Amino acid sequence: MRVRHKPWAAEKLAEHPEYVVTELISQKGKWQESFKNEAPIHIEVGSGKGQFIVGMAAQNPDINYIGIELQTSVAVTALDKMLEAQLPNVKLLNTDGGLLSDYFEEGEVDRVYLNFSDPWPKARHEKRRLTYKSFLENYETIMKPNGAVHFKTDNMGLFEYSLGSFSQYGMIIDQVWLDLHASDFEGNVQTEYEEKFAAKGQPIYRVEAHFSTK
Amino acid sequence: MRVRHKPWAAEKLAEHPEYVVTELISQKGKWQESFKNEAPIHIEVGSGKGQFIVGMAAQNPDINYIGIELQTSVAVTALDKMLEAQLPNVKLLNTDGGLLSDYFEEGEVDRVYLNFSDPWPKARHEKRRLTYKSFLENYETIMKPNGAVHFKTDNMGLFEYSLGSFSQYGMIIDQVWLDLHASDFEGNVQTEYEEKFAAKGQPIYRVEAHFSTK
Repeated sequence: MRVRHKPWAAEKLAEHPEYVVTELISQKGKWQESFKNEAPIHIEVGSGKGQFIVGMAAQNPDINYIGIELQTSVAVTALDKMLEAQLPNVKLLNTDGGLLSDYFEEGEVDRVYLNFSDPWPKARHEKRRLTYKSFLENYETIMKPNGAVHFKTDNMGLFEYSLGSFSQYGMIIDQVWLDLHASDFEGNVQTEYEEKFAAKGQPIYRVEAHFSTK
Repeated sequence: MRVRHKPWAAEKLAEHPEYVVTELISQKGKWQESFKNEAPIHIEVGSGKGQFIVGMAAQNPDINYIGIELQTSVAVTALDKMLEAQLPNVKLLNTDGGLLSDYFEEGEVDRVYLNFSDPWPKARHEKRRLTYKSFLENYETIMKPNGAVHFKTDNMGLFEYSLGSFSQYGMIIDQVWLDLHASDFEGNVQTEYEEKFAAKGQPIYRVEAHFSTK
């Protein structure tokens, strides 16, 4: 995502520790404590402007949500949504999704969401795709046994790749949607990008897959 | 497929034992013998009018192909193509694809093709789909270890279902195509149905998956 640089963004994020986690390492293994409950933790890697994660938190009060977004200038827009929604079950982690095990204890997370991740279409950039095996390994490490990844995208190439990557890693594919918006799937919370894209009538792909404990 | 009944079809099939196998059980475990070589055996379950299996045989002289088709009135059209092509590496088996282990020895087959299989969209007909787990079990039984299934269809619902069914059975998904004709896949041999359907500009889905020997 191309974004306007906002020099004041980091400062604003730091002013809202109730929503934005900045002392990263200290939070590891203590996320439920910081939510003040024992509800499951679902994270979104690459949460962007936050419409999905805040929407999910509003829809599911019994789940704790954490949006992970590296770009400060984007994360600050998600913070604005959180300040407006005033929900107790959503937080923001302003860091790189590639370092998840620095921020979460083994087995601390119940589900990972990936939405409209950068497709990195060139073969030489395969390792940067959030569904590449090294990322899957990171997700597996911080998740409970049999934890699931829920992934949606409009990018055909990335979706084709990801189905193979999940399966070859040893994950089990639970369900696939090749045209999510035309399906009977209920409770879909759209991202900002998804709203614009789907309005053009092009399909949204979705998959639910889980790690297998052989 | 709706077909015109051809009362003479069974008789014509019986007249060409060089292409059509009728003494079924006796062939089990002896297919390479009947091809007079030791080349791998690829079968198509539901071979219809035979354009795919005859086209594949022409394209790949080092593989033995067997088309399996229950409907006599359709199989006879495939026989006509074989009589015209005069290829030594293709045969027809006029029987039900659900009884494969009656006709093939364990490990006798190297690959199974499924093309535009009946989608059986109603949930109560799930067990009739050629990618349902009981069929996968049949394919696995007659195939070499790590044998592959190559499946293509225009039916979105059947394709979504099949990806999940393969994975949940324990198969590994090697590659997925969500728009085969727009992809760089080389050597695609079209079925009669595929030619008509793709001309309308709608996508053809394809997957290669293999059985896993854990």
